[in-house]
Amino acid sequence: MTKPNFQSFHPQQRTLMGPGPSDVSPQVLAALARPTLGHLDPTFVGLMDEVKVLLQYAFQTQNKLTMPVSAPGSAGMEACFANLVEPGDKVIVCQNGVFGGRMQQNVIRCGGEAIMVQDEWGKQTDLAKVEDALKANPDVKILAFVHAETSTGVRNDAKALCELARKYNCLTIVDAVTSLGGIELDVDGWQIDAIYSGTQKCLSCVPGLSPVSFSEKAVDVIQQRKTPVQSWFLDMQLVMGYWGQGGQRAYHHTAPVNSVYALHESLLALQNEGLEQAWKRHQDMHLMLREGLEGLGLEFVVDEAYRLPQLNSVGIPEGVDDAQVRSRLLNEFNLEIGAGLGALAGKVWRIGLMGYGCNQKNVEYCISSLAQVLGK
Amino acid sequence: MTKPNFQSFHPQQRTLMGPGPSDVSPQVLAALARPTLGHLDPTFVGLMDEVKVLLQYAFQTQNKLTMPVSAPGSAGMEACFANLVEPGDKVIVCQNGVFGGRMQQNVIRCGGEAIMVQDEWGKQTDLAKVEDALKANPDVKILAFVHAETSTGVRNDAKALCELARKYNCLTIVDAVTSLGGIELDVDGWQIDAIYSGTQKCLSCVPGLSPVSFSEKAVDVIQQRKTPVQSWFLDMQLVMGYWGQGGQRAYHHTAPVNSVYALHESLLALQNEGLEQAWKRHQDMHLMLREGLEGLGLEFVVDEAYRLPQLNSVGIPEGVDDAQVRSRLLNEFNLEIGAGLGALAGKVWRIGLMGYGCNQKNVEYCISSLAQVLGK
Repeated sequence: MTKPNFQSFHPQQRTLMGPGPSDVSPQVLAALARPTLGHLDPTFVGLMDEVKVLLQYAFQTQNKLTMPVSAPGSAGMEACFANLVEPGDKVIVCQNGVFGGRMQQNVIRCGGEAIMVQDEWGKQTDLAKVEDALKANPDVKILAFVHAETSTGVRNDAKALCELARKYNCLTIVDAVTSLGGIELDVDGWQIDAIYSGTQKCLSCVPGLSPVSFSEKAVDVIQQRKTPVQSWFLDMQLVMGYWGQGGQRAYHHTAPVNSVYALHESLLALQNEGLEQAWKRHQDMHLMLREGLEGLGLEFVVDEAYRLPQLNSVGIPEGVDDAQVRSRLLNEFNLEIGAGLGALAGKVWRIGLMGYGCNQKNVEYCISSLAQVLGK
Repeated sequence: MTKPNFQSFHPQQRTLMGPGPSDVSPQVLAALARPTLGHLDPTFVGLMDEVKVLLQYAFQTQNKLTMPVSAPGSAGMEACFANLVEPGDKVIVCQNGVFGGRMQQNVIRCGGEAIMVQDEWGKQTDLAKVEDALKANPDVKILAFVHAETSTGVRNDAKALCELARKYNCLTIVDAVTSLGGIELDVDGWQIDAIYSGTQKCLSCVPGLSPVSFSEKAVDVIQQRKTPVQSWFLDMQLVMGYWGQGGQRAYHHTAPVNSVYALHESLLALQNEGLEQAWKRHQDMHLMLREGLEGLGLEFVVDEAYRLPQLNSVGIPEGVDDAQVRSRLLNEFNLEIGAGLGALAGKVWRIGLMGYGCNQKNVEYCISSLAQVLGK
């Protein structure tokens, strides 16, 4: 075979205001590039312990089983479903966007039965419908929903949904990929049983890891499974052996060591700012962005009452070429905004204000760039 | 919850001569830290195309479905088994170390039947036994084996095993985690159907990705499955949509963008050196290391005829404290060597000579450090 003849890659410095990955700080990139340690090196094991504590803080939980899965958010989702769902189990899945549909796929592929509660994309999950589904299915094991629906910009009422689940004696699986670090999230206060997130949204870390947390109740359920978890890689009983549950450090897989450095550094930024302050900053910047977008005549898709500050969906004005606008922003301004996904493809833009990239400079740059491209 | 109060992490500069991760070059670390792009950015998509070509070169294959799975080698293994094994399928698994056992777990968790061909740890897989198993099980679908057994340092005869598989009309799944880039590997020449590797061994990239490649025959089998792949995250029919099979670029999951930069850079090093030259360097350095280790009175576990140059298992001398030696090497010399795994725990050391770290300086440093710690 002939040898290829490629050169080193030098990407542009983009401003990332899509649905994620978001802008990564120089501090996090510097941490990423520090010398690689062995995955069982005592120094690295010490770092893993810090990452667990930092994630407990971010999730607001004392859950011992709190750690990053060594793969992107989709794998964190699968870790939650594959460990908690056994063949024949019934799971109520709330869908009002793309990611509820992915949850449904996960339930089915675990041999479970997905009972769907559908709401319109861009609307909130209807609590009354969920309660109806819970009443109609007294043998449901799990209620699964997305806290911050990245495909639409809707915040679902996680606290109320968890209360409903408890009322009907259900476990909860919560998608917090886009919510963690950006809006209020209280795993212990809301008594969430299994939750997964991603590193590349409001944590502003590079993509590739998925922080997860499981309540004691969830761990009990996992330990009492009748069938083995179908994924060896994501079997939490094996993974927790490596991440130090019960003081062990058994080799399971090789952790993505450098990505864990980066996650640690990004969680330090959250620690240093403080969770509440980070949530407030997302809200403040969102209000500033909103003013600018509305000034350009753009309209929000999602009602203010349950709109995510970190993911702003606006309708594409009549007669405007979606792809051309995004392409001009990218090529002329090095600015990425997100396209619509699924049912909203071609109809909306999704403008992310996440983590490190959620700042006044980005807001103003986004508005001025959009103004120029839209000829306003 | 009280805020944690941690500081930035600054790891030591270790010399990594264990079973992986291996030393990562400054060039690869620099690539890793370049600005993050969106996972659908045209510039990143161009890089993905280059990575595919570079992996085709490393694997020596024209297979279109050649790409890195967005997770460590264990997930690459699972991607091969979960896509090719359906419930009830029979798979012959050759085991002569830890990773054959992991393959067995994968078969079982996919609902398949694993027919084990066991050989002693440290010995080569016995071709006659494999042929007996193939004869005795004419309905076997897949022959699975480990090319370079990281737990022992044995090279199995991949070419001959693939010939046997073809003779009995079987597909092959090959673990090349430790072989890719370190010893001869010829996916098309040997007609391997599914193969997975890791980035943190002889490619000297950071851990976290798993290069895989599937033959056309394997792709046909995947496309004709009767049941859905049990893993959504690892379903190659979905993953290939993102990695550009058939010209599409459908969003599946968020790729670990920066890790892909690093993989690209590490594959450039292989391209620039040339595969054959890289294999020769591993062999040359191994001979130098062997001379030094034997000079210290250490004995190789594996017969020379099928010994891996990149993973050197030597017996721990009588009366020597395993953990103390490794701990002194780490603390006084910043040198990591590997402990024994599974049946060989406490009995051997595993000294890696992989990729960038496979050089004269490391060989000499390893020998002189070991000499001091062993009091030779």
